[in-house]
Amino acid sequence: MRILVFNENHHELTRPEIAERYPLGIHGTVAAALAERLGPAAEIATATQDQPGYGLTPEAVDAADVLVWWSHLLHADMDDATVARLRRRVLDGMGLVVLHSGAGSKLFTSLMGTSCDRRWRHGEDRHLVWTVKPGHPIAAGIPQPLVIPHDEMYGEPFDIPEPDELVFISSFTGGEVFRSGACYTRGAGRIFYFGAGDQECPVYHQAEVQDVIANAVRWAAPTGPVGGHFVDAPSPVGWWER
Amino acid sequence: MRILVFNENHHELTRPEIAERYPLGIHGTVAAALAERLGPAAEIATATQDQPGYGLTPEAVDAADVLVWWSHLLHADMDDATVARLRRRVLDGMGLVVLHSGAGSKLFTSLMGTSCDRRWRHGEDRHLVWTVKPGHPIAAGIPQPLVIPHDEMYGEPFDIPEPDELVFISSFTGGEVFRSGACYTRGAGRIFYFGAGDQECPVYHQAEVQDVIANAVRWAAPTGPVGGHFVDAPSPVGWWER
Amino acid sequence: MRILVFNENHHELTRPEIAERYPLGIHGTVAAALAERLGPAAEIATATQDQPGYGLTPEAVDAADVLVWWSHLLHADMDDATVARLRRRVLDGMGLVVLHSGAGSKLFTSLMGTSCDRRWRHGEDRHLVWTVKPGHPIAAGIPQPLVIPHDEMYGEPFDIPEPDELVFISSFTGGEVFRSGACYTRGAGRIFYFGAGDQECPVYHQAEVQDVIANAVRWAAPTGPVGGHFVDAPSPVGWWER
Amino acid sequence: MRILVFNENHHELTRPEIAERYPLGIHGTVAAALAERLGPAAEIATATQDQPGYGLTPEAVDAADVLVWWSHLLHADMDDATVARLRRRVLDGMGLVVLHSGAGSKLFTSLMGTSCDRRWRHGEDRHLVWTVKPGHPIAAGIPQPLVIPHDEMYGEPFDIPEPDELVFISSFTGGEVFRSGACYTRGAGRIFYFGAGDQECPVYHQAEVQDVIANAVRWAAPTGPVGGHFVDAPSPVGWWER
Repeated sequence: MRILVFNENHHELTRPEIAERYPLGIHGTVAAALAERLGPAAEIATATQDQPGYGLTPEAVDAADVLVWWSHLLHADMDDATVARLRRRVLDGMGLVVLHSGAGSKLFTSLMGTSCDRRWRHGEDRHLVWTVKPGHPIAAGIPQPLVIPHDEMYGEPFDIPEPDELVFISSFTGGEVFRSGACYTRGAGRIFYFGAGDQECPVYHQAEVQDVIANAVRWAAPTGPVGGHFVDAPSPVGWWER
Repeated sequence: MRILVFNENHHELTRPEIAERYPLGIHGTVAAALAERLGPAAEIATATQDQPGYGLTPEAVDAADVLVWWSHLLHADMDDATVARLRRRVLDGMGLVVLHSGAGSKLFTSLMGTSCDRRWRHGEDRHLVWTVKPGHPIAAGIPQPLVIPHDEMYGEPFDIPEPDELVFISSFTGGEVFRSGACYTRGAGRIFYFGAGDQECPVYHQAEVQDVIANAVRWAAPTGPVGGHFVDAPSPVGWWER
Repeated sequence: MRILVFNENHHELTRPEIAERYPLGIHGTVAAALAERLGPAAEIATATQDQPGYGLTPEAVDAADVLVWWSHLLHADMDDATVARLRRRVLDGMGLVVLHSGAGSKLFTSLMGTSCDRRWRHGEDRHLVWTVKPGHPIAAGIPQPLVIPHDEMYGEPFDIPEPDELVFISSFTGGEVFRSGACYTRGAGRIFYFGAGDQECPVYHQAEVQDVIANAVRWAAPTGPVGGHFVDAPSPVGWWER
Repeated sequence: MRILVFNENHHELTRPEIAERYPLGIHGTVAAALAERLGPAAEIATATQDQPGYGLTPEAVDAADVLVWWSHLLHADMDDATVARLRRRVLDGMGLVVLHSGAGSKLFTSLMGTSCDRRWRHGEDRHLVWTVKPGHPIAAGIPQPLVIPHDEMYGEPFDIPEPDELVFISSFTGGEVFRSGACYTRGAGRIFYFGAGDQECPVYHQAEVQDVIANAVRWAAPTGPVGGHFVDAPSPVGWWER
């Protein structure tokens, strides 16, 4: 399995306290956690928005079975052609795991078809992640609830399509709730959105959060070849008789 | 529209403080609220488990377009034949609105196929009901969030099938979450489960809770005849050519 | 209820045999059928892609509760800003009924998030539309199956998200199948895709096809105000306490 | 992975031409196909309704990770307590793969909550199984379409809940359609219904049909322990704080 971890990497480069919290960048922290959990069979690469082509060159993306995504402030800066190429690869079967504020990225909103708007509050809410679909592979080994001591609040209404499978629902100190673990298939690609995490809190250093991301990567990985699933073609009577 | 409101009516008959809270019974309170909201076009009847045949005679049930259901302690006392008859009518197209502890009734669990088990806590949690599907007819006019000052906690994991449409998610003082507004179609019948309410709290006297129940009754009402939708019959080639 | 019927109107203006089949245009035929079925309470307007602003001016669209859509060859000619405005109104709660080749429109694909690619065959297949969700309002009064004597074949795999509710599945003479009646909610808007119909066949003159479209318009109409359902805003602790 | 293949085994014991078609019984044919595809890591056992306790003793069932099910005429003969025990194990996480006429079994209908009624026709329709969810693990390697030369027709409307994921739709010579590959989660258990197959046709000898069943078994296998996922228990405030 080949995994590409993308990070906007803007906070890390511009704010010292965040660089201190995430000395490897969020991408580096997530990549290291995946390497530890998925073992040597997983090839893990990273890409950041400050790199040429955002690090999302055709070579890099075409080599990925699963793309993990974190972005926040620079959604609008990514050019539409890159987004269209990424989206096409998801529809072709590449898995996609979108974290936290990546909900607002062009890639995720273009795959959902909705605004993905939601309430939010910077701060230090206690964030409880409840498993509502026990037995789902993404919930395997995750405590009930998963307690994140401090996190940004994301709250309903969250403008997403009805998930194909809803795995987690979160609550926050302020009483808000959030569909924080949602599975989708789009085209032949599997997509998982996970709400936890913010640059202001050490959420991605928490082992149980890392477990969820690793589970999600395994779940989202394609079980067959990427591409070739759909056609837009005339089909004469009897075409399927072989 | 003909509505039948069923109540176990056990607490009202056996505990004075609950009879005082609900002098009309929960069924009477709900029926009055529906009459006020649905107007004279709605014919509203009630049935209670202490009546002969639980008040759920074939005549009463066959005359109902929508059945509203509250039960709690006496689930096991209802005979299977009555439950089978009610279930058949739901599959034929009668709407069903199940309230709170009715989740554990034979009727609801036999339609869901699952245990409908859940966490719970008697007490006086602040119960916030969040609309996650704005624009849904059952959420029309409901505040975001609906605040129920005191209620029993019901918490995840709630052993229900993935809802066809999830309208409400609740949070409680203790940090628990609950899928408290869930839509299903089973056979030709529409089913709505609403988590709010307990005999220990005056929840069904709250106008906004009554609004939800009235919206749900409108949504669950059949749009055509009840029955005749499914067949289990041999069908010769060409049977559909008329 | 205010309904706007949009048609690309390209075939009618460029091919005499199609102008003869649809002397009012497909939009005019559909609008007349809706007027007959929905009565005087429905205000029905039409728009065609050859008009200034495609007839889809802000005034016209902001006055619509439901948009009915037919398009085919000129999808790429519609500018992105118009599509974004239409999409925003759907997310705000305007209903959308997309017919046949409209599946490939920018509006529909941007709401689905997928390519909406599918197999197809010009020709005269016998098209059977089977109701798989009896009791659904869109299937009310529709024969089982609805027989369209001659139609273009559209076949699986159809690259759409798993429908929230699947109402119709079609089969064709050639043995292909197609999910031809699919319900979605996106944002606060209800969307129905209906596969029947082609410019080459008189499908939209068939009464039962018109019945489906009228049912779909009723189903898709918003039950409350359009807009204001979602926020993307900071929310201080306690904001919801009133 | 431990797999239990159940077969009613009534036709094989009472009709020589069917014993000739399936000399190992349908259970034996399916078990051999699974053994070939899943390799030595899979422990495969069989059970038949003519055995004591239907072969579905607590020991046999508690040792199963996935149950494969075929039944037809003797649904009513199975006692409710056995069905309740099997259903409980599915909700606890055991996978279930139900074939063809097993749709009418007490086990499947009690998990679906619906009648599972459908149209049918003994005969020799050409049965085309179309993949509508390419990329789904159950469709991996399956031809598009899978052509079964002769099979019994099963047709819509099929009284099942909206599937969590719809993988296959079939068409038949007579023009009927059928949702023939449907995924559900109930409790913590994964359930797959597959429509193909009949005692009158050699369907289960066809390699591609065997491939589907093997894929389904892999998909339905639990990813964690069976049992312990749900509680029905009072939960004091703060119970989750550790």
